[in-house]
Amino acid sequence: MLTDEEKTGVSTFVPDSYLMDFRGRITVSTISMYLLQTASEHAANHGFGYSDMTKQHTTWVLSRLAVEVNDYPGISGPISVYTWVDEINRLFTSRCFEWKDQTGKTLGFARSIWAAIDLQTRKPTTLDQTTISHYLCNRSCPIDKPGKIVPAEQHDAGMPYQLKYSDLDINGHFNSIKYIEHMLDLFDLKLFSEKEIRRFEIEYKAEGMYGMELMLHKHQVTEDKYALSICHEGKVLSRAAVTWQ
Amino acid sequence: MLTDEEKTGVSTFVPDSYLMDFRGRITVSTISMYLLQTASEHAANHGFGYSDMTKQHTTWVLSRLAVEVNDYPGISGPISVYTWVDEINRLFTSRCFEWKDQTGKTLGFARSIWAAIDLQTRKPTTLDQTTISHYLCNRSCPIDKPGKIVPAEQHDAGMPYQLKYSDLDINGHFNSIKYIEHMLDLFDLKLFSEKEIRRFEIEYKAEGMYGMELMLHKHQVTEDKYALSICHEGKVLSRAAVTWQ
Repeated sequence: MLTDEEKTGVSTFVPDSYLMDFRGRITVSTISMYLLQTASEHAANHGFGYSDMTKQHTTWVLSRLAVEVNDYPGISGPISVYTWVDEINRLFTSRCFEWKDQTGKTLGFARSIWAAIDLQTRKPTTLDQTTISHYLCNRSCPIDKPGKIVPAEQHDAGMPYQLKYSDLDINGHFNSIKYIEHMLDLFDLKLFSEKEIRRFEIEYKAEGMYGMELMLHKHQVTEDKYALSICHEGKVLSRAAVTWQ
Repeated sequence: MLTDEEKTGVSTFVPDSYLMDFRGRITVSTISMYLLQTASEHAANHGFGYSDMTKQHTTWVLSRLAVEVNDYPGISGPISVYTWVDEINRLFTSRCFEWKDQTGKTLGFARSIWAAIDLQTRKPTTLDQTTISHYLCNRSCPIDKPGKIVPAEQHDAGMPYQLKYSDLDINGHFNSIKYIEHMLDLFDLKLFSEKEIRRFEIEYKAEGMYGMELMLHKHQVTEDKYALSICHEGKVLSRAAVTWQ
């Protein structure tokens, strides 16, 4: 029987100045990239990574990601990202994250929900729970689970955007990190100067392909809360909710 | 007196799957990011990095970068980037690069030209040659120096693009790497499926700022050679030349 510490994975990143935003701080999209890389490594190390899934003609797809940031570091040494699996059921598994600076100070927490899809049909398949169940962990992740997101596309006409080469991931689909980058680009620079994103939550609903004509929507829900969405011909590819502080 | 080996800097990178393109290969923009990070580290380690320049109220600006790629690795272990200074004069310094896979095989070479500008006036200033001269190195860089680039904007009407939050660097200017990303996005995906970029060469002529309405131009010079440029209100911010094979 493994301890919670043994079940937890950790990867370390040194954010370079070329990845910092105009404030000299790490961005939500870079943090999210570190989280997904840490998840990949943890799963691969324990027999349920992408290459293990491929052998069963399936792959992981990220369904939801909720990121809460306490502090955005500047250029200040390595960041350690911890990840652990906290739930699994027939179709989904939930994975949590905590990241810390080099002094051991917690910079944020995140929750993610993953499904397995068949590589040919791209439809959800049932998860093989036996391997993953060994790694279910009780470590605390003190942030809200991903919830319902206001449909921004019902309130905003949208900005057109056509999917490009640099938007594609290794499978030729819209890269999960690039969704986040394009969504955050809908905010005015002034907001980034005056406030910080405290919580960013995204739901991935459909796959984007090269050349697709997208509409990017932003809707202000309350003073500090915004809903975002990315649609293609009226179909929602992704929705997100952002809380500023 | 230092040996050429002692004068050469090396940084190591592990390209993650989230940075790979749809072919599962590293991109020209990711390679370029690694080159610039390696240059920063080498300069900082020898007393002429960004923070040393700031003390003299100056900063480095990248003027030209020419990258020649023999091989684009997939996910296959760390890449080591070597860098050395090969020339310095009153206003410019030239820095070369070679990068290798973990077996020691050379994947490509690059040349870059840097100027120092005054932090307030943003005008070129003379370089302090004494420190840098100690690191002038005779290591071979068997690729052509950056040359004259065909002005694409004189042959192509252009695609509009407005500069966004994610395009900005730590100084609030258009990020050198994002110029490359936007330029390569002008090529059709089919070209990336059929050919490889053998040489990418870029000249940075003026700084881009948030919200600027840019025009992105592409002009086919010969079957495998293209000229690209980014302009703002008729002024050229950057020009590039791409050779496919």
